[in-house]
Amino acid sequence: MSPNEDQQHNLVLSVNAGSSSLKISLYSAPLQQLDSSSKSEPVTLLLTSSISSISAPPAKFSFKPASIKATTTKDESIDAIKDHASAFAHFLHYLEKEASIDKDRIKYICHRVVHGGDYSEPVIITQETYHHIEKLSDLAPLHNGAALSVIHACIDVLPSTKSIAFFDTAFHRTIPLHVASYAIDQKIAKERGLKKYGFHGLSYAFIHRAVAQYLDKAPESLNLILLHLGSGASACVIKDGRSLDTSMGLTPLNGLPGATRSGAIDPSLIFHYTNRAGRITHDPSMATNIGVTKAEDILNRKSGWKSITGTTDFGEITKHAELDNPDSSIASKNPNRLAFDLFADRILNYIGSYYLKLHGNVDALVFAGGIGEKSVELREMISQRVECLGFRKLSNERNGNVGKSGDVVEEISDPAEDEEGKKAKRILVCSTDEQLEMARECVLDHKLWPKD
Amino acid sequence: MSPNEDQQHNLVLSVNAGSSSLKISLYSAPLQQLDSSSKSEPVTLLLTSSISSISAPPAKFSFKPASIKATTTKDESIDAIKDHASAFAHFLHYLEKEASIDKDRIKYICHRVVHGGDYSEPVIITQETYHHIEKLSDLAPLHNGAALSVIHACIDVLPSTKSIAFFDTAFHRTIPLHVASYAIDQKIAKERGLKKYGFHGLSYAFIHRAVAQYLDKAPESLNLILLHLGSGASACVIKDGRSLDTSMGLTPLNGLPGATRSGAIDPSLIFHYTNRAGRITHDPSMATNIGVTKAEDILNRKSGWKSITGTTDFGEITKHAELDNPDSSIASKNPNRLAFDLFADRILNYIGSYYLKLHGNVDALVFAGGIGEKSVELREMISQRVECLGFRKLSNERNGNVGKSGDVVEEISDPAEDEEGKKAKRILVCSTDEQLEMARECVLDHKLWPKD
Repeated sequence: MSPNEDQQHNLVLSVNAGSSSLKISLYSAPLQQLDSSSKSEPVTLLLTSSISSISAPPAKFSFKPASIKATTTKDESIDAIKDHASAFAHFLHYLEKEASIDKDRIKYICHRVVHGGDYSEPVIITQETYHHIEKLSDLAPLHNGAALSVIHACIDVLPSTKSIAFFDTAFHRTIPLHVASYAIDQKIAKERGLKKYGFHGLSYAFIHRAVAQYLDKAPESLNLILLHLGSGASACVIKDGRSLDTSMGLTPLNGLPGATRSGAIDPSLIFHYTNRAGRITHDPSMATNIGVTKAEDILNRKSGWKSITGTTDFGEITKHAELDNPDSSIASKNPNRLAFDLFADRILNYIGSYYLKLHGNVDALVFAGGIGEKSVELREMISQRVECLGFRKLSNERNGNVGKSGDVVEEISDPAEDEEGKKAKRILVCSTDEQLEMARECVLDHKLWPKD
Repeated sequence: MSPNEDQQHNLVLSVNAGSSSLKISLYSAPLQQLDSSSKSEPVTLLLTSSISSISAPPAKFSFKPASIKATTTKDESIDAIKDHASAFAHFLHYLEKEASIDKDRIKYICHRVVHGGDYSEPVIITQETYHHIEKLSDLAPLHNGAALSVIHACIDVLPSTKSIAFFDTAFHRTIPLHVASYAIDQKIAKERGLKKYGFHGLSYAFIHRAVAQYLDKAPESLNLILLHLGSGASACVIKDGRSLDTSMGLTPLNGLPGATRSGAIDPSLIFHYTNRAGRITHDPSMATNIGVTKAEDILNRKSGWKSITGTTDFGEITKHAELDNPDSSIASKNPNRLAFDLFADRILNYIGSYYLKLHGNVDALVFAGGIGEKSVELREMISQRVECLGFRKLSNERNGNVGKSGDVVEEISDPAEDEEGKKAKRILVCSTDEQLEMARECVLDHKLWPKD
């Protein structure tokens, strides 16, 4: 049954706009309201599409129906794609002409918006909410811009479709005040919204739910330490099913280093790095028309492991890191090793903190994100180091086979370690999916989905 | 025997210059070289003096011979004290006229210098080293200035006395490269010396040695988590007797919040706090003539718990924090509670990280510094939270009696907890003394002290 023949289902589109990329997934969903307690998946993936290199043309376009099992898709260079709006237009055109899916059958478009300020749940885009999100871009100029231009394009091209913004910050609304507050002037902090918001929330929501299902436990009973490790990387601690702390802060810059982000640094550092730190940058590659300081440009786009090794590819870094070399001064000779060890050190710092925040009662440590899912070596190193906290010992076989089963959650620690039947802490890997999380939430949310 | 009658001893002066204060201790030391492995104290305290409110005249002066057992001394307002140089001149004058100690008997003056750049040990002040330290002030404009002006005054007034600079950074020279490095452009980092230096090193060196003596263990075998909690606060992890990590960074601003310091914040925050962050401040109360950005001024001097509560006095904050109030939203109503909980949260983050860095093999957690030594409530809260890591349970009686015995190191956990003879982790309080640490090092250092 092709999507067009099936009139018993609505179509839901999930759009995930990065600074230079666009990831799109199309789902079908039943017409009627679903029960959120049901364990069956409420949406079915129909196809995925991805556009990359948008700010470094020619952009690359791929389109893959879910029915095709091929793991790789061919990227096509498309000269007509100049920005996020034309990227989205190209996708819709392709959808109608090549996949014969009528765009008007799309009832909902879910947009991942990184910074949601004080929004604690998804909102339907109206003129009012659009302008509010636009204002939030002041707080996250580098992050909300792309999503906003796609939202704008959707309103233009699909005026009868409901656009819904899902926020990465919303998951962390439960972080207690004293954890989210900075030790700065509280009047200015309140006026300008200067506090820890936290990010990667759609991913953490997905992981939380998937792990609860895997462990067959109530989500609200779970204590988890989650690592979303990709070109943007963060850690999160969940207590009784709620975010208690996370490593990113006011913006995604804080916490763990990323491919081009510095992560946490001494707050004075940037003024010693450049005395032009506070001025507005005029970098033409910056895809935003909101004032971004030179400091934000340097720390978000010209730092991270790329600035240490020359590459953003953590797999390449790992390959050249000489991890077997026991020379204690190896990091001073090999920048790849420096980057690897630095990243692992910062990750372990958060695991130690979060373990104590949970009073040692941890159900699982979970790796996710591109690096979390792919780096056998990083998982091995971290797993060995956390054994002293009572985690099950790593199974090298399981660790080496991650991704082969196709399961969303896999254990890489050795269940045989739990012979005595004690509640030993597990180490898991989760294949996270922000687009699916949005589509699920959209369908299950009574306020969004039609009742009839 | 008065100091002047005793010609068998040299006099050593230790000077600790803060931004608006000067603490001075005078010691006698034997003329001959001492054996550093000896356990007897190599120096004897003769007197202490302290000058406060130097930048908010009239300055307050106190002078107290060690032979007087009174715990409080009367502060005298001295109009002639305008800056650190005149404060030091006033002390010398008083020493000669009122205590009848000839200033020329002072053989060594030890100066605490906060930022020592790459200096890994104390240096005798020469024209060359003086200028080098002056250059380092670029990296720590708010911190080295006062010490430099006292050093300058000493050279003027006591030209035949050796001035020696002791650096707070030197203790942390053992921090591994991947821990000390930031994920930023490594060429610029090297050129400008942008890395984690760490501070409070003289205090940590004192605590490390005192705890080794207390536990009767070899210093190089110890694994410790140290908390120096005062108006400036930091944490340090010692593995096998060497600093492995610490919370302060390139400058003392990073890490834990302090009385007026923000501690760690999102690196982007300051640009959202003020768009004038990068400009040089013209604040007349700034006691430095080196360029300090508005950001550094705000984050070092106008933040911290003072900016939350209005006071720098942590005892006052604790008194009004309603620590017994179980209302989970109390921090949103009571800024004192917010400041207390925020500080405790950040301290616990470091304890968790450092516990994992030591693979759980911790000999002791040690509280020191003004707050560490005085705050019964903070020690109680932290001690309860770390019990899950295998620390001995807090003894409320011991915790309430800290400071009464006059011992340098006291255990506040309950030794009876160690009934099974296991190596349970202890919780200690150490009365740290940076001036004594400098005088000791000076006398025991073969390169400094005359061999004959």
